[in-house]
This record gives sequence, C-alpha cells and structure tokens, in this order.
Amino acid sequence: MGFNNFLYLLNDALSNQHLDLALDSVKTFRAADLADVLTQLPLENSQLLLQHLPDRAYVFSYLAPEVQVRFANVLARQTLAEIVGEMSSDKRADLFKNLNKQQQNALLPALAQAEREDIRLLSSYVEGTAGAIMSSEYATLKPELSVKEAITMLRLEAPDTETIYFAYVLDEARKLLGVVSLKQLILAPENQNIADLMATNIVSAFVETDQDEVAKTIARYDLLALPIIDHQGVMVGIVTYDDAMDVASEEATEDFLKAGAVNADSKLSLKFAPILQLYQKRVYWLVFLVFGSLLSGLGIAHFEDIIAAHIVLVFFLPLLVGSGGNAGSQSATLMVRALATGDVHFKDWFYLLGRESLVALLLGGTMAFAVSVLGYFRGDEMVALVLALSMLTIVMMGCLIGMSLPFILNRFGMDPASASAPLVTSICDATGVLVYLFIASRLLF
Amino acid sequence: MGFNNFLYLLNDALSNQHLDLALDSVKTFRAADLADVLTQLPLENSQLLLQHLPDRAYVFSYLAPEVQVRFANVLARQTLAEIVGEMSSDKRADLFKNLNKQQQNALLPALAQAEREDIRLLSSYVEGTAGAIMSSEYATLKPELSVKEAITMLRLEAPDTETIYFAYVLDEARKLLGVVSLKQLILAPENQNIADLMATNIVSAFVETDQDEVAKTIARYDLLALPIIDHQGVMVGIVTYDDAMDVASEEATEDFLKAGAVNADSKLSLKFAPILQLYQKRVYWLVFLVFGSLLSGLGIAHFEDIIAAHIVLVFFLPLLVGSGGNAGSQSATLMVRALATGDVHFKDWFYLLGRESLVALLLGGTMAFAVSVLGYFRGDEMVALVLALSMLTIVMMGCLIGMSLPFILNRFGMDPASASAPLVTSICDATGVLVYLFIASRLLF
Repeated sequence: MGFNNFLYLLNDALSNQHLDLALDSVKTFRAADLADVLTQLPLENSQLLLQHLPDRAYVFSYLAPEVQVRFANVLARQTLAEIVGEMSSDKRADLFKNLNKQQQNALLPALAQAEREDIRLLSSYVEGTAGAIMSSEYATLKPELSVKEAITMLRLEAPDTETIYFAYVLDEARKLLGVVSLKQLILAPENQNIADLMATNIVSAFVETDQDEVAKTIARYDLLALPIIDHQGVMVGIVTYDDAMDVASEEATEDFLKAGAVNADSKLSLKFAPILQLYQKRVYWLVFLVFGSLLSGLGIAHFEDIIAAHIVLVFFLPLLVGSGGNAGSQSATLMVRALATGDVHFKDWFYLLGRESLVALLLGGTMAFAVSVLGYFRGDEMVALVLALSMLTIVMMGCLIGMSLPFILNRFGMDPASASAPLVTSICDATGVLVYLFIASRLLF
Repeated sequence: MGFNNFLYLLNDALSNQHLDLALDSVKTFRAADLADVLTQLPLENSQLLLQHLPDRAYVFSYLAPEVQVRFANVLARQTLAEIVGEMSSDKRADLFKNLNKQQQNALLPALAQAEREDIRLLSSYVEGTAGAIMSSEYATLKPELSVKEAITMLRLEAPDTETIYFAYVLDEARKLLGVVSLKQLILAPENQNIADLMATNIVSAFVETDQDEVAKTIARYDLLALPIIDHQGVMVGIVTYDDAMDVASEEATEDFLKAGAVNADSKLSLKFAPILQLYQKRVYWLVFLVFGSLLSGLGIAHFEDIIAAHIVLVFFLPLLVGSGGNAGSQSATLMVRALATGDVHFKDWFYLLGRESLVALLLGGTMAFAVSVLGYFRGDEMVALVLALSMLTIVMMGCLIGMSLPFILNRFGMDPASASAPLVTSICDATGVLVYLFIASRLLF
C-alpha cells in the first residue's frame, strides 16, 4: 500500500468519525512521520487526529512553524493550551514567537503560571543566540547526594526533562558546579558522593553566545547537551545535540544561499514561500550587481577604438573575462567554506594569500597556454601574446579578489559568506575587461 | 596565560623530560583540545606526551587523518598497536584505511585476533555508505532478560560500547527485535521483561545505505544512534549522532564547493593541502568552462555587423549577459539546496518551474524597466525597447536554465549540486549574447 493510498484511507476514516480505526493505523508511526501525515490531511481531519494522538504535544513540535500557526487558529483555546503546556520549553517559546499578538493574548491566560513565566523568559532572548534555542528542562542534582539518591532523583525528574543522560550539579545559588552522566551513575558504587563523581572541566556557553558557536562546540566535543549559563555562572538552560544539528543545517543553508547571491534565511521554502517573497529575496542582489556590469560596459566603451581596429579581440572577450570570474568564484567559495568550518581563520590571510598566489600562477599559466594556442590560429603571434598575458593577469587577479573579498567584507562588519559567486564574478568581469583591453591597446598599436 | 605561552611551557617541560609536570598541566583538557595541543607540538615531544596520556586512544581518534599517519610512522609498533587496540572500531578502521600497505602489514600482526577481524570487516564497506562509518561496539540484550538483569548486563558491557543509552534486543541469530533506552530501564519496574518493554517500531538502515541518508534519518528522528542491519535483518553496527553531525557537515562542504565549481571532497584543507592538489581540483572546471565562453565569443563574432553599426550595444552587453547569469545562479542555488535538504523533490519539477516562471517574470520585468531607462538616456527609444525585451527574455531564460540544470544533471546520473554558479553563468552568458544580438539585429535594422 503506497503512502498516498494510506493517506486516502486514513482521511476517509476520519471523515466518517472512525477515530479508533484512524488511531490504530498510525500507532507505530514516529512523531516526525505523524507530523508529515498531519500536514498532508485536510485541516479539519488532521485537527481531529491531532487532538487524540497519545503524544500530541511531541508530534505538534515536529510540525513546520506555518503549519503550527494554522492549527493554533482552529484548535479550541483549551486544547491548544493543553498541547502548548505539554510541549518542551524551547519549542513552546518558538511557537509563541510565531503567533500574532491576538493569538498570543488569547493563549497566555489559559496557560499555567510557570509556563507563562517560561515563555516570557525564553522569548526575551535575541534570535540566533544560545538563549533563543535553549530549553529550560534539564535534570539537576545537589553535590551532597549519593549515587543511589541521585538515580532516584533522576527517576522523579525524568518526565520534566529533555534528557536524563546528563545531570547538572548546582549549588544553592544554582551555580553550575559539575556534570554527571547517567553512565557514570550506573557504573559507580551506590554510596559514592556526587561531588566526588562529577566532572568539573565543564564545557558551557553564555546565553548570548551565537547559536552557530553553540552548535560547533557541541560537535567539537561530541556532547549530548551543552549547559548555558549567565555571567554569574548561574545555569539557565541546555541546548541539546538535536537542536545543534538543526542549527548546523540552517547555517549551512544560509551560507549556501548567500554564495548564490540569495538574500534569505534558511526558513525560506522554495515550495511554499509566496512568489513576492522569493522575488524580494533576489531582486536586491540582481539590481546591486548592475553596477558591476555597468563598470564593465564603461571599460568596453572606453576602448572602443582598439576593439574596432582588432575585431578578433571581441571574440575572446567572454573567454578571458569569464575565466577570471570562474577562478575568483572558486577562490571565494573555498575561502568562505573554510572560514565557516573553522579550517582557516582571518589571521591566516597572509599565509593563504601566498599559497593562493602559487595556485593562481599555475591555473593562470595553464589557461594562458590554452588561450594563446587558440589566439595564434585565429589571429597572429601578437594576438597570442596579448591573450596569454591578459589571461595570466586576469586569472591571478580573479583568484586574489576571490580570496580577499571575504576578509574585506568581514572588515566592514559584513558576513564573509556574502562574497557570492555573482558578486565575485561581477567584480572580476569589470577588472578583466580593463586589464584585457589595456594590454591589447599597449601591444597592438 | 595565552595559549602560545602555554604551548611553549609545555614543550619546555617535555623537552626536559618533566613528564609529570606536562601531564598535570593538561589534566583538565578535553580530548578535542588535547588533539589540538598534540598537533602543534614538535612531533618528538607530542609523541612523548601522547604515550602517557590516560585517554590516549580517545585523544588519538580526534587527530586529523594526516596527523594520525605521521604518528603511526614514529610510534613504536607495540605502542601503536596498543593505541589502535583501544580505539573505537569505526575510528580504527578509518585509520587503517589511511595507512599505506607497508604500515598496514606492520600493524596487523601486533593486533588481537578480534581487532584484525573487525578491521577487515569494516574496511570492506564502500566509502560513503553506512557500513563505512558504523561502529561495531554497541550494547545488546536478550529479550527474555528482566530489567534488573539488563541493567547489570549494560554495566558489564559499558567499557566495550560506544553508548549504553540505547541497547539493541537481538534474537539468537542476531536479528534485531527491538530497542530499549537506558531511560526506559531506569523508569521501569525491576522485574519487567525486556521483550515487553522494548520499542519495536525501529528505525534502521542497511549497510550499503548512503551516509548522507543515514545522517538525515538520525536528524529527522532525533536519534542518538541508528542501528545498521544487513538484508537478513541481522544487526551489524550502529552509527551514532556525533558521526551523523560530521557527515552532515562534510556533505554541506562538498555541496558548497561544487556550487563554486571546485571539484573537491570535504577533506581538502585550504591550509594544508599541497598546492598541486588545489590546482588540480580547480583546473578541470576552469578548462571545461572555456567551451561556454567560446560559444559566447562565436555569438559575438556572428553579429559583428550589428555591433559595428550600433556600438552602444557593446556598452550594455556585460549588463544584460551578466544579469541572466546572476538570476540563473540564484535559481540553481535555491534549487540545489532545496533538493539537498529535502525541501523539494525531483517530482516537484513542473510545479516549481511554474512558480519560478512567475518569479522570473517579476525579476525580469524589474530589470527590464531599469535597463530601458538607462538605454533611453544613452541611446534612443528603439535601443530602450531592444534592451527591455532582451533583459526580460534573458533573465527569464536564466532562471529557467538555473532551475532546470540540477534536474537535467540528475537525469544523466550526475550530482545535481554540480550545477555550479560558474557553470550556470557560462551557459546563460552564451544564451544571453545570442538573444540580445538577435533581438537587436531584428529591431535595429
């Protein structure tokens, strides 16, 4: 039975109020799959199914933000409050931020006091920081407990925590003293003290740390969760590995889109975003890049005479100019990604520029040789010489522009990933036109 | 004390054989940080330090592959065998694959029989599959055990497993029956049966599943580990979430580099890779793209007369042609990333092409308006008309080319991510030249 067929039968069961049948047909489904099913059913039926799912708050967390908001509009206020109350604190705060003022005001009074406080606190952190993605549900222990008491505590805390595999040892002022893993607890003697067992070389992050940094720290140390503290050392939350994976994927998407001169965040859906929004995310760069092209045009206009006298030059124009842009795009791409993964740092710039010069020399040399052969057969020795010299210069300049642009952008407080292929190409094109026609004007007259 | 100062003192201590002092100064370091320290010390001293680290095999796993090989060359065979013996099975197999034949033959006899078998098995899987990244150290339980017995079992198995937070329930033939988490075990009554407790709606992957798929599955279901089975349902390994994070990062890097027309895998280090290797990863695409540029050149040569008659056309050539390439790069970028994240699928092509046509119409219209104003002031109404018509056509064609290229590449069995900005730009450039000069030749004569 295919998935579409299954959806059809499920929808049919729901339309006919055969709720038991419907629930039974999805009982082995995982939350992520159930969220897909809910997204594809008509809203009326998916709302009915959602309300009766045993793990409905967990499934609800897996829905895309716009789908969550759609449900929030149609669910009875009490049902919505129950679902929201059962959600994990970070997912709850995310949902809340996506609701409009009216929806927020309708929801708040229906929630418990603690949940309201939690939402207020978590939504107060700036987007993109550790605070905005952390969860306030983590297991805590006191240092004076024994291992046996600690395990009992974790059993009690389990329903209200995101994970019991790590527990954070706090003092009276909730300052973070150490970490113990459930593995340590299981392997340790029952009467050992937590204070003696806990690891004290804790990796942690501050609430205002960039979410990308948080994700990188979790990946670097292979952590299950990273404790988040304020500047007094007081523990305020945890970021778990699965949130770190989502952040890493979002950051990769944003860098990727920037590299293609699309000015968008990772939530932009090619399939669902409004046409006007897609237009708006792209037109900005397209118009901006016009200036680069106009510069190329001015360069060509300036050298009109040499072009008219040696029309063969026009034939090679796209090749020379294009090669510089292509080589520059490659350099920028390598540099932007290496900066993003932490393979290189801004302080390495001089060293990298030296290496890049060598690579550029080899690339330029290869391309110069190839183009001079073409030039000899289509023109003469002088044309071949002009082409070879121009190609070498243009490719080398392209590489150095591509390599330097991310650093220059960073200097001006911009994201180095904005050194997109189209931007590099535009700059290299203008430079290439000038270099080529200047060399030609010197050697051919 | 800065890090460089610390390194200097540590190196000094090691040079003077003050091993206790050296070990004491790094005792709070985590494995990932120790690996950094080892990489930056002179080989002789870092080798000395490594040998005496309490968690040396774990630290060794964090070293970059080329650094591991360097150590393998200088460590005494017995020491190397001990370290390799203590490594986790997946890291051990990776190291082994990086050694040359001679090093492999020297190492193998010094290892225990079980480890040799394990290396043979794990290195036999194709690179890029689940088999090649999985670990064979996981906790297993029998279905007839009680919860109390199971916890005792996990305590015994703990030293030899990557995680005890999940245990896999296998039958006599090692077929995978279910999964229990340590959390479930801690919360369940001591005398409950594992068979009754275990979850049976298991998510798993086959040994030959693509590593990218494995990473996506782990991210989708927020798993700590994914069991890997063969086609008889026999369990052969697990892939843990930290390996999935590494794979996701590698895949993102590869796609990113492809988008910039760099033909490299994620292991290419901009800082350490030999110059010739960097050259070789780039020259292939640069030379290939020459053909696109030559096509543009031929187009220009073909329309020489119209250019000579209306030299103002040359001024606008880079702008028109460039805008098509830029719009096309944006489309390709959006499409390639959406395919990679699973936001869209190949079957959505027609639907997406429809949406893209609308976006392209808006983008082309905006650009056409802008360029026609410029054209009116630099030329006349007819030039403005030629420019507007050309711009609209070129931007729309660029968008449709950029959107379609990933699908076409996929049709021919190539990676859609190879639809790089430079490739799209080259194709759009050639198309743009022809469209522009054709329209001009029709309207201006």
